[in-house]
Amino acid sequence: MGLDKSWFTEASDQSGLAFSLKISDRLHHEQTAYQEIEIYQTTTFGKLMVIDGFIMLSSRDNFIYHEMMTHPVLYCHPDPKHVVIIGGGDCGSLQQVLLHSDVETVIQIDIDQTVTELSQRYFPELCESNHDPRATLLFANGIDWIREAKAASIDIIIVDSTDPIGPATELFEREFYQLCERALRPQGLLVQQSESPLLHQNIIKNMIKSMRSTGFSASNTLHFPQCVYPSGWWSATIAAKLEKPVLRRKQAVGIKKFDTKYYSADIHEAAAVQMPFLKGVTY
Amino acid sequence: MGLDKSWFTEASDQSGLAFSLKISDRLHHEQTAYQEIEIYQTTTFGKLMVIDGFIMLSSRDNFIYHEMMTHPVLYCHPDPKHVVIIGGGDCGSLQQVLLHSDVETVIQIDIDQTVTELSQRYFPELCESNHDPRATLLFANGIDWIREAKAASIDIIIVDSTDPIGPATELFEREFYQLCERALRPQGLLVQQSESPLLHQNIIKNMIKSMRSTGFSASNTLHFPQCVYPSGWWSATIAAKLEKPVLRRKQAVGIKKFDTKYYSADIHEAAAVQMPFLKGVTY
Repeated sequence: MGLDKSWFTEASDQSGLAFSLKISDRLHHEQTAYQEIEIYQTTTFGKLMVIDGFIMLSSRDNFIYHEMMTHPVLYCHPDPKHVVIIGGGDCGSLQQVLLHSDVETVIQIDIDQTVTELSQRYFPELCESNHDPRATLLFANGIDWIREAKAASIDIIIVDSTDPIGPATELFEREFYQLCERALRPQGLLVQQSESPLLHQNIIKNMIKSMRSTGFSASNTLHFPQCVYPSGWWSATIAAKLEKPVLRRKQAVGIKKFDTKYYSADIHEAAAVQMPFLKGVTY
Repeated sequence: MGLDKSWFTEASDQSGLAFSLKISDRLHHEQTAYQEIEIYQTTTFGKLMVIDGFIMLSSRDNFIYHEMMTHPVLYCHPDPKHVVIIGGGDCGSLQQVLLHSDVETVIQIDIDQTVTELSQRYFPELCESNHDPRATLLFANGIDWIREAKAASIDIIIVDSTDPIGPATELFEREFYQLCERALRPQGLLVQQSESPLLHQNIIKNMIKSMRSTGFSASNTLHFPQCVYPSGWWSATIAAKLEKPVLRRKQAVGIKKFDTKYYSADIHEAAAVQMPFLKGVTY
Protein backbone atom coordinates (compact mmCIF):
# COMPACT_ATOMS: atom_id res chain seq x y z
CA MET A 1 0.00 0.00 0.00
CA GLY A 2 2.91 2.31 0.66
CA LEU A 3 4.84 4.07 -2.07
CA ASP A 4 8.60 3.70 -2.29
CA LYS A 5 11.13 6.38 -3.11
CA SER A 6 10.37 6.18 -6.81
CA TRP A 7 7.36 8.46 -6.21
CA PHE A 8 7.07 12.17 -5.46
CA THR A 9 4.14 12.75 -3.14
CA GLU A 10 2.35 15.94 -2.18
CA ALA A 11 0.30 15.14 0.90
CA SER A 12 -1.94 17.30 3.05
CA ASP A 13 -3.01 15.95 6.43
CA GLN A 14 -5.52 18.74 6.71
CA SER A 15 -7.31 18.01 3.44
CA GLY A 16 -6.73 14.28 3.99
CA LEU A 17 -5.47 13.61 0.50
CA ALA A 18 -2.26 13.03 -1.34
CA PHE A 19 -1.22 12.92 -4.98
CA SER A 20 1.89 11.18 -6.27
CA LEU A 21 3.76 10.98 -9.54
CA LYS A 22 6.24 8.26 -10.35
CA ILE A 23 9.69 9.72 -10.85
CA SER A 24 12.86 8.43 -12.41
CA ASP A 25 15.20 11.21 -11.28
CA ARG A 26 15.49 14.40 -9.26
CA LEU A 27 17.07 16.77 -11.74
CA HIS A 28 17.51 19.80 -9.52
CA HIS A 29 17.18 20.91 -5.92
CA GLU A 30 17.79 24.43 -4.74
CA GLN A 31 16.98 26.56 -1.73
CA THR A 32 16.68 30.13 -2.96
CA ALA A 33 16.27 33.24 -0.83
CA TYR A 34 12.52 32.72 -1.11
CA GLN A 35 11.70 29.04 -1.39
CA GLU A 36 12.83 25.47 -2.01
CA ILE A 37 12.58 24.46 -5.67
CA GLU A 38 12.81 20.90 -6.97
CA ILE A 39 12.66 19.58 -10.52
CA TYR A 40 11.86 15.91 -11.14
CA GLN A 41 11.77 13.71 -14.19
CA THR A 42 8.51 11.74 -13.97
CA THR A 43 7.82 8.54 -15.87
CA THR A 44 4.58 9.66 -17.54
CA PHE A 45 4.04 13.39 -16.85
CA GLY A 46 7.27 14.77 -18.29
CA LYS A 47 9.11 17.14 -15.97
CA LEU A 48 7.72 18.33 -12.66
CA MET A 49 8.39 21.56 -10.75
CA VAL A 50 7.81 21.53 -7.00
CA ILE A 51 8.06 24.58 -4.74
CA ASP A 52 8.19 24.13 -0.97
CA GLY A 53 6.78 20.63 -1.43
CA PHE A 54 3.81 21.76 -3.53
CA ILE A 55 3.47 20.70 -7.15
CA MET A 56 3.55 23.73 -9.44
CA LEU A 57 3.37 22.17 -12.89
CA SER A 58 4.09 19.17 -15.04
CA SER A 59 5.01 19.13 -18.72
CA ARG A 60 1.97 16.98 -19.49
CA ASP A 61 -0.96 18.90 -18.11
CA ASN A 62 0.15 22.52 -17.57
CA PHE A 63 -1.50 23.49 -20.85
CA ILE A 64 -4.92 23.43 -19.23
CA TYR A 65 -3.95 25.77 -16.40
CA HIS A 66 -2.00 28.20 -18.54
CA GLU A 67 -4.65 28.42 -21.24
CA MET A 68 -7.45 28.91 -18.70
CA MET A 69 -5.51 31.56 -16.75
CA THR A 70 -5.02 33.68 -19.85
CA HIS A 71 -7.35 33.30 -22.83
CA PRO A 72 -10.65 33.65 -20.93
CA VAL A 73 -9.68 36.95 -19.30
CA LEU A 74 -8.18 38.26 -22.55
CA TYR A 75 -11.31 37.47 -24.55
CA CYS A 76 -13.54 38.94 -21.81
CA HIS A 77 -11.77 42.26 -22.26
CA PRO A 78 -12.84 44.41 -25.23
CA ASP A 79 -9.33 45.57 -26.11
CA PRO A 80 -6.48 44.23 -23.96
CA LYS A 81 -3.25 46.10 -24.68
CA HIS A 82 -1.33 46.15 -21.40
CA VAL A 83 -1.09 43.02 -19.34
CA VAL A 84 0.68 42.41 -16.03
CA ILE A 85 1.40 38.96 -14.60
CA ILE A 86 2.06 38.68 -10.86
CA GLY A 87 3.98 35.47 -10.20
CA GLY A 88 3.98 33.10 -13.15
CA GLY A 89 7.77 32.74 -13.11
CA ASP A 90 7.58 29.55 -15.16
CA CYS A 91 6.56 31.84 -18.09
CA GLY A 92 3.71 29.56 -19.22
CA SER A 93 1.09 32.27 -18.76
CA LEU A 94 3.33 34.86 -20.37
CA GLN A 95 3.69 32.67 -23.44
CA GLN A 96 -0.07 32.27 -23.83
CA VAL A 97 -0.69 36.02 -23.44
CA LEU A 98 1.88 36.79 -26.12
CA LEU A 99 -0.08 34.67 -28.60
CA HIS A 100 -2.56 37.57 -28.70
CA SER A 101 -1.25 39.92 -31.34
CA ASP A 102 -3.40 42.79 -30.01
CA VAL A 103 -1.45 42.82 -26.76
CA GLU A 104 1.24 45.52 -26.81
CA THR A 105 3.04 44.96 -23.50
CA VAL A 106 3.25 42.19 -20.94
CA ILE A 107 5.14 42.65 -17.70
CA GLN A 108 5.79 39.54 -15.63
CA ILE A 109 6.79 40.16 -12.02
CA ASP A 110 7.92 37.11 -10.09
CA ILE A 111 9.84 37.48 -6.84
CA ASP A 112 12.21 34.59 -7.59
CA GLN A 113 14.43 34.71 -10.65
CA THR A 114 15.46 31.09 -10.07
CA VAL A 115 11.97 29.89 -11.01
CA THR A 116 12.37 31.44 -14.44
CA GLU A 117 15.95 30.21 -14.85
CA LEU A 118 14.87 26.65 -14.02
CA SER A 119 11.88 26.90 -16.31
CA GLN A 120 14.14 27.99 -19.15
CA ARG A 121 16.30 24.95 -18.50
CA TYR A 122 13.65 22.29 -17.82
CA PHE A 123 10.49 23.64 -19.49
CA PRO A 124 11.97 25.42 -22.53
CA GLU A 125 8.66 24.94 -24.39
CA LEU A 126 7.09 27.46 -21.97
CA CYS A 127 9.82 30.04 -22.44
CA GLU A 128 9.96 30.32 -26.21
CA SER A 129 8.46 33.82 -26.14
CA ASN A 130 10.55 35.25 -23.31
CA HIS A 131 12.50 37.37 -25.77
CA ASP A 132 9.41 38.78 -27.48
CA PRO A 133 10.00 42.57 -27.60
CA ARG A 134 6.57 43.10 -26.01
CA ALA A 135 7.62 41.14 -22.89
CA THR A 136 9.39 42.44 -19.79
CA LEU A 137 10.50 40.00 -17.11
CA LEU A 138 11.00 41.60 -13.71
CA PHE A 139 12.10 39.89 -10.53
CA ALA A 140 10.61 41.82 -7.67
CA ASN A 141 7.76 41.89 -5.19
CA GLY A 142 4.55 42.02 -7.22
CA ILE A 143 2.56 43.85 -4.59
CA ASP A 144 5.14 46.63 -4.35
CA TRP A 145 5.19 46.87 -8.12
CA ILE A 146 1.42 47.18 -8.35
CA ARG A 147 1.46 49.78 -5.55
CA GLU A 148 3.81 51.95 -7.57
CA ALA A 149 2.11 51.39 -10.92
CA LYS A 150 0.44 54.38 -12.54
CA ALA A 151 -3.28 54.54 -11.73
CA ALA A 152 -5.62 53.33 -14.49
CA SER A 153 -2.74 52.14 -16.66
CA ILE A 154 -3.28 48.38 -16.96
CA ASP A 155 -5.91 46.41 -18.89
CA ILE A 156 -5.42 42.99 -17.32
CA ILE A 157 -3.72 41.70 -14.17
CA ILE A 158 -3.10 37.94 -14.02
CA VAL A 159 -2.32 36.65 -10.53
CA ASP A 160 -0.56 33.35 -11.20
CA SER A 161 0.64 32.62 -7.70
CA THR A 162 1.12 29.75 -5.28
CA ASP A 163 -1.57 28.89 -2.73
CA PRO A 164 -2.65 31.38 -0.07
CA ILE A 165 -0.13 29.96 2.41
CA GLY A 166 3.17 31.67 3.21
CA PRO A 167 4.44 34.39 0.86
CA ALA A 168 1.40 34.38 -1.45
CA THR A 169 -1.14 34.98 1.36
CA GLU A 170 -1.18 38.73 0.76
CA LEU A 171 -2.22 38.16 -2.85
CA PHE A 172 -5.58 36.91 -1.60
CA GLU A 173 -6.30 39.91 0.64
CA ARG A 174 -8.38 43.04 0.33
CA GLU A 175 -5.41 45.42 0.36
CA PHE A 176 -3.92 43.78 -2.72
CA TYR A 177 -7.22 43.89 -4.61
CA GLN A 178 -7.48 47.60 -3.80
CA LEU A 179 -4.07 48.20 -5.34
CA CYS A 180 -5.06 46.21 -8.43
CA GLU A 181 -8.33 48.04 -8.76
CA ARG A 182 -6.48 51.37 -8.71
CA ALA A 183 -3.92 50.25 -11.28
CA LEU A 184 -6.54 48.91 -13.71
CA ARG A 185 -8.33 50.99 -16.29
CA PRO A 186 -12.14 51.24 -15.93
CA GLN A 187 -12.69 48.23 -18.19
CA GLY A 188 -9.75 46.42 -16.61
CA LEU A 189 -9.96 42.82 -15.43
CA LEU A 190 -8.18 40.82 -12.77
CA VAL A 191 -7.86 37.05 -12.95
CA GLN A 192 -6.54 34.90 -10.15
CA GLN A 193 -6.10 31.17 -9.66
CA SER A 194 -8.75 30.34 -7.05
CA GLU A 195 -8.02 26.83 -5.79
CA SER A 196 -10.24 23.73 -5.82
CA PRO A 197 -14.03 24.08 -6.02
CA LEU A 198 -14.32 20.80 -4.10
CA LEU A 199 -11.78 21.42 -1.34
CA HIS A 200 -11.34 25.15 -0.90
CA GLN A 201 -14.78 26.67 -0.86
CA ASN A 202 -13.93 28.91 2.08
CA ILE A 203 -10.89 30.31 0.31
CA ILE A 204 -12.91 31.01 -2.84
CA LYS A 205 -15.75 32.60 -0.89
CA ASN A 206 -13.42 34.85 1.11
CA MET A 207 -11.43 35.75 -1.97
CA ILE A 208 -14.53 36.86 -3.86
CA LYS A 209 -15.80 38.70 -0.78
CA SER A 210 -12.48 40.58 -0.53
CA MET A 211 -12.54 41.42 -4.24
CA ARG A 212 -16.12 42.68 -3.99
CA SER A 213 -15.27 44.81 -0.94
CA THR A 214 -13.03 46.91 -3.19
CA GLY A 215 -14.00 48.44 -6.52
CA PHE A 216 -14.59 45.08 -8.19
CA SER A 217 -18.35 44.91 -8.44
CA ALA A 218 -18.57 41.61 -10.34
CA SER A 219 -16.76 38.32 -10.72
CA ASN A 220 -17.02 35.05 -12.58
CA THR A 221 -15.35 31.80 -11.55
CA LEU A 222 -14.22 29.37 -14.24
CA HIS A 223 -13.70 25.67 -13.54
CA PHE A 224 -11.28 23.28 -15.20
CA PRO A 225 -9.52 19.98 -14.55
CA GLN A 226 -5.96 20.08 -13.34
CA CYS A 227 -4.66 16.63 -12.58
CA VAL A 228 -1.58 17.62 -10.55
CA TYR A 229 -3.40 20.02 -8.18
CA PRO A 230 -5.29 18.80 -5.10
CA SER A 231 -8.58 17.11 -6.07
CA GLY A 232 -7.72 17.33 -9.78
CA TRP A 233 -10.17 20.19 -10.18
CA TRP A 234 -9.22 23.84 -10.13
CA SER A 235 -10.62 27.31 -10.79
CA ALA A 236 -9.76 30.82 -11.88
CA THR A 237 -11.79 33.83 -10.85
CA ILE A 238 -12.10 36.88 -13.09
CA ALA A 239 -13.05 40.15 -11.38
CA ALA A 240 -14.37 43.28 -13.10
CA LYS A 241 -15.15 46.81 -12.02
CA LEU A 242 -18.23 47.37 -14.09
CA GLU A 243 -20.14 44.31 -15.18
CA LYS A 244 -19.93 40.54 -14.99
CA PRO A 245 -16.92 39.40 -17.05
CA VAL A 246 -18.29 37.28 -19.88
CA LEU A 247 -16.88 36.22 -23.24
CA ARG A 248 -17.21 39.54 -25.06
CA ARG A 249 -15.08 38.79 -28.09
CA LYS A 250 -16.47 35.42 -29.08
CA GLN A 251 -15.95 36.12 -32.75
CA ALA A 252 -12.28 36.86 -32.15
CA VAL A 253 -11.85 33.41 -30.61
CA GLY A 254 -13.27 31.86 -33.76
CA ILE A 255 -10.70 33.55 -35.98
CA LYS A 256 -7.68 33.43 -33.65
CA LYS A 257 -4.41 32.70 -35.40
CA PHE A 258 -2.97 30.31 -32.80
CA ASP A 259 -3.88 26.83 -31.62
CA THR A 260 -5.07 25.96 -28.16
CA LYS A 261 -5.38 22.45 -26.77
CA TYR A 262 -7.98 23.04 -24.06
CA TYR A 263 -9.46 26.52 -24.65
CA SER A 264 -12.20 27.37 -27.12
CA ALA A 265 -15.13 29.78 -27.06
CA ASP A 266 -17.47 26.95 -26.09
CA ILE A 267 -15.11 25.75 -23.36
CA HIS A 268 -14.87 29.32 -22.06
CA GLU A 269 -18.63 29.53 -21.63
CA ALA A 270 -18.87 25.96 -20.33
CA ALA A 271 -16.19 26.61 -17.70
CA ALA A 272 -18.17 29.61 -16.43
CA VAL A 273 -21.25 27.55 -15.57
CA GLN A 274 -21.67 27.24 -11.80
CA MET A 275 -22.76 24.01 -10.14
CA PRO A 276 -25.72 24.11 -7.73
CA PHE A 277 -23.53 23.08 -4.78
CA LEU A 278 -21.39 26.20 -5.24
CA LYS A 279 -24.31 28.52 -4.54
CA GLY A 280 -23.18 30.99 -1.90
CA VAL A 281 -19.55 30.27 -2.79
CA THR A 282 -18.95 31.43 -6.37
CA TYR A 283 -22.35 32.98 -7.07
CA MET B 1 7.89 12.01 1.31
CA GLY B 2 6.49 8.54 1.95
CA LEU B 3 3.04 7.94 3.34
CA ASP B 4 2.57 5.81 6.43
CA LYS B 5 -0.16 3.29 7.08
CA SER B 6 -2.70 5.98 7.88
CA TRP B 7 -3.28 6.42 4.13
CA PHE B 8 -5.05 4.29 1.57
CA THR B 9 -3.26 4.57 -1.78
CA GLU B 10 -4.36 3.57 -5.26
CA ALA B 11 -1.23 3.56 -7.40
CA SER B 12 -0.67 2.68 -11.03
CA ASP B 13 2.87 2.14 -12.22
CA GLN B 14 1.65 2.18 -15.78
CA SER B 15 -0.07 5.57 -15.57
CA GLY B 16 2.68 6.79 -13.23
CA LEU B 17 0.33 8.31 -10.70
CA ALA B 18 -1.16 7.56 -7.33
CA PHE B 19 -3.96 9.01 -5.25
CA SER B 20 -4.24 8.61 -1.48
CA LEU B 21 -6.84 9.36 1.14
CA LYS B 22 -6.06 9.59 4.84
CA ILE B 23 -7.89 6.90 6.76
CA SER B 24 -8.69 6.40 10.41
CA ASP B 25 -9.99 2.83 10.19
CA ARG B 26 -10.59 -0.12 7.89
CA LEU B 27 -14.20 -0.96 8.59
CA HIS B 28 -14.57 -4.04 6.42
CA HIS B 29 -12.56 -6.43 4.31
CA GLU B 30 -14.03 -9.31 2.39
CA GLN B 31 -13.05 -11.57 -0.47
CA THR B 32 -16.25 -12.48 -2.31
CA ALA B 33 -16.60 -15.01 -5.10
CA TYR B 34 -15.93 -12.15 -7.53
CA GLN B 35 -13.63 -9.60 -5.95
CA GLU B 36 -11.95 -8.16 -2.87
CA ILE B 37 -13.98 -5.42 -1.23
CA GLU B 38 -12.70 -3.02 1.41
CA ILE B 39 -14.47 -0.22 3.26
CA TYR B 40 -12.43 2.50 4.96
CA GLN B 41 -13.26 5.43 7.18
CA THR B 42 -11.36 8.41 5.80
CA THR B 43 -10.60 11.56 7.75
CA THR B 44 -12.10 14.05 5.28
CA PHE B 45 -13.92 12.11 2.52
CA GLY B 46 -16.36 10.11 4.64
CA LYS B 47 -16.43 6.42 3.87
CA LEU B 48 -14.53 4.83 1.02
CA MET B 49 -15.28 1.67 -0.96
CA VAL B 50 -12.39 -0.07 -2.68
CA ILE B 51 -12.70 -3.08 -5.00
CA ASP B 52 -9.61 -5.07 -5.96
CA GLY B 53 -7.49 -2.12 -4.85
CA PHE B 54 -9.36 0.43 -7.01
CA ILE B 55 -11.32 3.25 -5.41
CA MET B 56 -15.01 2.94 -6.28
CA LEU B 57 -16.55 5.82 -4.35
CA SER B 58 -16.31 8.11 -1.35
CA SER B 59 -19.17 9.63 0.61
CA ARG B 60 -17.91 13.11 -0.17
CA ASP B 61 -17.69 13.25 -3.91
CA ASN B 62 -19.79 10.38 -5.35
CA PHE B 63 -22.63 12.83 -5.99
CA ILE B 64 -20.86 14.15 -9.07
CA TYR B 65 -20.40 10.73 -10.65
CA HIS B 66 -23.87 9.45 -9.84
CA GLU B 67 -25.64 12.59 -11.02
CA MET B 68 -23.65 12.69 -14.27
CA MET B 69 -24.18 9.00 -14.99
CA THR B 70 -27.96 9.35 -14.77
CA HIS B 71 -29.58 12.76 -15.27
CA PRO B 72 -27.90 13.63 -18.58
CA VAL B 73 -28.97 10.40 -20.28
CA LEU B 74 -32.47 10.60 -18.79
CA TYR B 75 -32.99 14.16 -20.00
CA CYS B 76 -31.56 13.31 -23.43
CA HIS B 77 -34.32 10.71 -23.85
CA PRO B 78 -37.77 12.01 -24.85
CA ASP B 79 -39.68 9.65 -22.57
CA PRO B 80 -37.63 7.27 -20.42
CA LYS B 81 -39.86 4.66 -18.80
CA HIS B 82 -37.75 1.51 -18.54
CA VAL B 83 -34.20 1.77 -17.28
CA VAL B 84 -31.59 -0.94 -16.76
CA ILE B 85 -28.39 -0.46 -14.76
CA ILE B 86 -25.52 -2.87 -15.39
CA GLY B 87 -23.24 -2.86 -12.36
CA GLY B 88 -23.93 0.03 -9.99
CA GLY B 89 -24.21 -2.27 -6.96
CA ASP B 90 -23.65 0.64 -4.58
CA CYS B 91 -27.14 1.81 -5.65
CA GLY B 92 -26.11 5.44 -6.08
CA SER B 93 -27.13 5.52 -9.76
CA LEU B 94 -30.35 3.65 -9.00
CA GLN B 95 -31.28 6.27 -6.44
CA GLN B 96 -30.74 9.13 -8.89
CA VAL B 97 -32.79 7.40 -11.62
CA LEU B 98 -35.69 6.88 -9.21
CA LEU B 99 -35.87 10.63 -8.62
CA HIS B 100 -37.44 10.81 -12.08
CA SER B 101 -41.15 10.25 -11.51
CA ASP B 102 -41.69 9.43 -15.23
CA VAL B 103 -39.56 6.32 -14.88
CA GLU B 104 -41.74 3.24 -14.39
CA THR B 105 -39.20 0.47 -13.87
CA VAL B 106 -35.50 0.30 -13.02
CA ILE B 107 -33.67 -3.01 -12.98
CA GLN B 108 -30.20 -3.02 -11.45
CA ILE B 109 -28.04 -6.03 -12.29
CA ASP B 110 -24.79 -6.32 -10.37
CA ILE B 111 -22.89 -9.57 -10.26
CA ASP B 112 -21.94 -9.23 -6.59
CA GLN B 113 -24.64 -8.99 -3.93
CA THR B 114 -22.01 -8.14 -1.31
CA VAL B 115 -21.41 -4.74 -2.91
CA THR B 116 -25.03 -3.83 -2.31
CA GLU B 117 -25.07 -5.27 1.20
CA LEU B 118 -22.00 -3.25 2.13
CA SER B 119 -23.41 -0.12 0.53
CA GLN B 120 -26.58 -0.53 2.58
CA ARG B 121 -24.46 -0.75 5.70
CA TYR B 122 -21.82 1.92 4.99
CA PHE B 123 -23.47 4.21 2.42
CA PRO B 124 -27.11 4.09 3.57
CA GLU B 125 -27.70 7.53 2.01
CA LEU B 126 -27.30 5.90 -1.43
CA CYS B 127 -29.73 3.07 -0.68
CA GLU B 128 -32.75 5.00 0.55
CA SER B 129 -34.74 4.13 -2.58
CA ASN B 130 -33.86 0.44 -2.80
CA HIS B 131 -37.37 -0.50 -1.69
CA ASP B 132 -39.09 1.75 -4.23
CA PRO B 133 -41.73 -0.49 -5.89
CA ARG B 134 -40.37 0.56 -9.32
CA ALA B 135 -36.92 -0.89 -8.48
CA THR B 136 -35.73 -4.46 -8.96
CA LEU B 137 -32.31 -5.47 -7.66
CA LEU B 138 -30.87 -8.53 -9.37
CA PHE B 139 -27.55 -10.19 -8.67
CA ALA B 140 -26.45 -11.82 -11.86
CA ASN B 141 -24.21 -11.42 -14.89
CA GLY B 142 -25.34 -8.26 -16.63
CA ILE B 143 -24.25 -9.39 -20.08
CA ASP B 144 -26.25 -12.61 -19.81
CA TRP B 145 -29.24 -10.63 -18.61
CA ILE B 146 -29.05 -8.21 -21.54
CA ARG B 147 -28.65 -11.15 -23.95
CA GLU B 148 -31.91 -12.64 -22.72
CA ALA B 149 -33.80 -9.34 -22.53
CA LYS B 150 -36.69 -8.87 -24.93
CA ALA B 151 -35.64 -7.00 -28.07
CA ALA B 152 -36.59 -3.31 -28.20
CA SER B 153 -37.85 -3.33 -24.62
CA ILE B 154 -35.56 -0.90 -22.79
CA ASP B 155 -35.33 2.91 -22.98
CA ILE B 156 -32.02 3.44 -21.19
CA ILE B 157 -29.10 1.21 -20.28
CA ILE B 158 -26.64 2.63 -17.74
CA VAL B 159 -23.31 0.81 -17.62
CA ASP B 160 -21.94 1.73 -14.20
CA SER B 161 -19.02 -0.67 -14.09
CA THR B 162 -15.45 -0.89 -12.91
CA ASP B 163 -12.57 -0.18 -15.31
CA PRO B 164 -12.02 -2.24 -18.47
CA ILE B 165 -9.63 -4.55 -16.62
CA GLY B 166 -10.63 -8.02 -15.40
CA PRO B 167 -14.33 -8.90 -15.18
CA ALA B 168 -15.62 -5.61 -16.65
CA THR B 169 -13.55 -5.86 -19.84
CA GLU B 170 -16.39 -7.40 -21.82
CA LEU B 171 -18.57 -4.40 -21.02
CA PHE B 172 -16.32 -2.31 -23.27
CA GLU B 173 -16.49 -4.63 -26.28
CA ARG B 174 -18.44 -4.71 -29.51
CA GLU B 175 -20.40 -7.84 -28.63
CA PHE B 176 -21.85 -6.24 -25.53
CA TYR B 177 -22.84 -3.08 -27.41
CA GLN B 178 -24.60 -5.24 -30.00
CA LEU B 179 -26.63 -6.88 -27.25
CA CYS B 180 -27.51 -3.48 -25.81
CA GLU B 181 -28.46 -2.11 -29.19
CA ARG B 182 -30.85 -5.03 -29.72
CA ALA B 183 -32.44 -4.65 -26.27
CA LEU B 184 -32.99 -0.90 -26.63
CA ARG B 185 -36.01 0.68 -28.28
CA PRO B 186 -35.33 2.80 -31.39
CA GLN B 187 -35.01 5.97 -29.31
CA GLY B 188 -33.08 4.10 -26.63
CA LEU B 189 -29.84 5.38 -25.15
CA LEU B 190 -26.82 3.75 -23.60
CA VAL B 191 -24.55 5.56 -21.16
CA GLN B 192 -21.27 4.21 -19.92
CA GLN B 193 -18.54 5.55 -17.65
CA SER B 194 -15.68 6.20 -20.03
CA GLU B 195 -12.57 6.81 -17.93
CA SER B 196 -10.25 9.82 -17.83
CA PRO B 197 -10.06 12.21 -20.81
CA LEU B 198 -6.46 12.97 -19.82
CA LEU B 199 -5.18 9.45 -19.20
CA HIS B 200 -7.32 7.03 -21.15
CA GLN B 201 -7.77 8.45 -24.61
CA ASN B 202 -7.15 5.09 -26.24
CA ILE B 203 -9.84 3.42 -24.15
CA ILE B 204 -12.34 6.16 -24.98
CA LYS B 205 -11.49 6.07 -28.67
CA ASN B 206 -11.79 2.28 -28.89
CA MET B 207 -14.99 2.28 -26.87
CA ILE B 208 -16.65 4.81 -29.17
CA LYS B 209 -15.35 2.93 -32.21
CA SER B 210 -16.86 -0.31 -30.88
CA MET B 211 -20.18 1.39 -30.14
CA ARG B 212 -20.27 2.95 -33.60
CA SER B 213 -19.51 -0.43 -35.22
CA THR B 214 -22.87 -1.66 -33.96
CA GLY B 215 -26.22 0.07 -34.42
CA PHE B 216 -25.21 3.11 -32.39
CA SER B 217 -24.72 5.78 -35.01
CA ALA B 218 -23.98 8.68 -32.66
CA SER B 219 -22.39 9.39 -29.30
CA ASN B 220 -21.63 12.28 -27.00
CA THR B 221 -18.99 12.28 -24.27
CA LEU B 222 -19.61 14.32 -21.12
CA HIS B 223 -16.77 15.46 -18.86
CA PHE B 224 -16.83 16.05 -15.14
CA PRO B 225 -14.45 16.23 -12.19
CA GLN B 226 -14.16 13.16 -9.98
CA CYS B 227 -11.53 13.66 -7.31
CA VAL B 228 -11.11 10.01 -6.27
CA TYR B 229 -10.63 8.63 -9.79
CA PRO B 230 -7.25 8.71 -11.56
CA SER B 231 -6.39 12.26 -12.75
CA GLY B 232 -9.46 13.68 -10.95
CA TRP B 233 -11.22 14.06 -14.28
CA TRP B 234 -13.69 11.56 -15.67
CA SER B 235 -16.22 11.08 -18.44
CA ALA B 236 -19.45 9.34 -19.41
CA THR B 237 -20.32 8.55 -23.00
CA ILE B 238 -23.92 8.46 -24.20
CA ALA B 239 -24.61 6.44 -27.35
CA ALA B 240 -27.73 6.67 -29.50
CA LYS B 241 -29.11 4.77 -32.47
CA LEU B 242 -30.57 7.67 -34.39
CA GLU B 243 -29.11 11.05 -33.70
CA LYS B 244 -26.56 12.74 -31.46
CA PRO B 245 -27.81 12.55 -27.86
CA VAL B 246 -28.35 16.12 -26.72
CA LEU B 247 -30.39 17.65 -23.90
CA ARG B 248 -33.84 17.21 -25.41
CA ARG B 249 -35.94 17.92 -22.35
CA LYS B 250 -34.30 21.11 -21.14
CA GLN B 251 -37.58 22.51 -19.89
CA ALA B 252 -38.15 19.40 -17.76
CA VAL B 253 -34.82 20.03 -16.01
CA GLY B 254 -35.97 23.52 -15.12
CA ILE B 255 -39.11 22.26 -13.39
CA LYS B 256 -37.74 19.04 -11.87
CA LYS B 257 -39.05 18.30 -8.40
CA PHE B 258 -35.78 17.11 -6.88
CA ASP B 259 -32.50 18.79 -5.98
CA THR B 260 -29.17 18.04 -7.55
CA LYS B 261 -25.81 19.23 -6.27
CA TYR B 262 -23.81 19.06 -9.49
CA TYR B 263 -26.26 18.59 -12.36
CA SER B 264 -28.25 21.35 -14.05
CA ALA B 265 -29.34 21.96 -17.62
CA ASP B 266 -26.44 24.38 -18.10
CA ILE B 267 -23.98 21.91 -16.60
CA HIS B 268 -25.33 19.19 -18.90
CA GLU B 269 -24.61 21.28 -21.97
CA ALA B 270 -21.28 22.50 -20.57
CA ALA B 271 -20.13 18.94 -19.84
CA ALA B 272 -20.82 17.99 -23.46
CA VAL B 273 -18.40 20.54 -24.89
CA GLN B 274 -15.31 18.82 -26.32
CA MET B 275 -11.82 20.26 -25.86
CA PRO B 276 -9.64 20.74 -28.97
CA PHE B 277 -7.09 18.16 -27.75
CA LEU B 278 -9.78 15.44 -27.77
CA LYS B 279 -10.32 15.77 -31.51
CA GLY B 280 -10.12 12.28 -32.95
CA VAL B 281 -10.86 10.79 -29.54
CA THR B 282 -14.36 11.85 -28.53
CA TYR B 283 -15.37 13.66 -31.70
